Amino acid sequence: MLYDITVTQYSKMLGNLSQFLSKAAEYAESKKFNVEVLLNSRLAPDQFNLIRQVQIACDSAKFGASRLCGKEAPSHPDTETTLAELQARIKTVQDYLATFKPEDFEGAEERHVSQPRWEGKYLTGLEFAIQHSLPNVYFHITTAYSILRNNGVDLGKKDFLGNMPLK
Amino acid sequence: MLYDITVTQYSKMLGNLSQFLSKAAEYAESKKFNVEVLLNSRLAPDQFNLIRQVQIACDSAKFGASRLCGKEAPSHPDTETTLAELQARIKTVQDYLATFKPEDFEGAEERHVSQPRWEGKYLTGLEFAIQHSLPNVYFHITTAYSILRNNGVDLGKKDFLGNMPLK
Repeated sequence: MLYDITVTQYSKMLGNLSQFLSKAAEYAESKKFNVEVLLNSRLAPDQFNLIRQVQIACDSAKFGASRLCGKEAPSHPDTETTLAELQARIKTVQDYLATFKPEDFEGAEERHVSQPRWEGKYLTGLEFAIQHSLPNVYFHITTAYSILRNNGVDLGKKDFLGNMPLK
Repeated sequence: MLYDITVTQYSKMLGNLSQFLSKAAEYAESKKFNVEVLLNSRLAPDQFNLIRQVQIACDSAKFGASRLCGKEAPSHPDTETTLAELQARIKTVQDYLATFKPEDFEGAEERHVSQPRWEGKYLTGLEFAIQHSLPNVYFHITTAYSILRNNGVDLGKKDFLGNMPLK
């Protein structure tokens, strides 16, 4: 199940995030302002701007999968400044997620997962997925959405959730 | 695993949400304004205000558990107007979540889960949990956080994630 919760759903959510950015570009064009105004917007002076929210969403998704599987993730240096570069970053992470297979998650629930700032401490894979990775991915994608909503971009809950496979 | 992802984690996140509201109350008191200003704030004119974000977060968590287990959830009429009433609503849902046991989730992944607006269509329990329930809970809790951040309440990522069971 961890594969579905992380790889499959993160890729879907990154696709939704990409759509938010496309709508932001359309809005900027219709209102005749430079979309970089939106990319540099934030909801509080000590909050990361939209560019950084997208970068962290991408990293949270990437590391969510790689750490659960004990793999080394590719490094992305956070140099994006344009909307096209952010879209490319999202695509790069989606392509990386597509390299994972359900088998890669064998033993992932019990794996000791750490990250540099935890100074040698760890969570089990299950704890990491549920209490750290998932909340982080959703936090940054929702914050990106909120920054755009706050600036008038026409987004709604359907854009956030994406298509439901209703039967 | 669905029990951990929904019941356990939703209860933790609702506890974090309750803490945001407590910090909002402290902030209002320190700045000498009525906290109801915050409760009625929003990030866009056509977005739900903070009260409604909390109510929907509570309902998303409640229905996430009840629908996965094929149980009837208690009804909450969304009449809260004060911070104390919102805190009580959160507590009610945490108490409800505490009535669930891991055994209640037997067969939940394959269960057909629907809701009124889907007009008879359904998702499997696994799809509902991953693609609908989780994103909704995180969306509304993050949006509540963002509304408060946007109004100057001193919240950070640690408040959002809560304690990590590091070992």
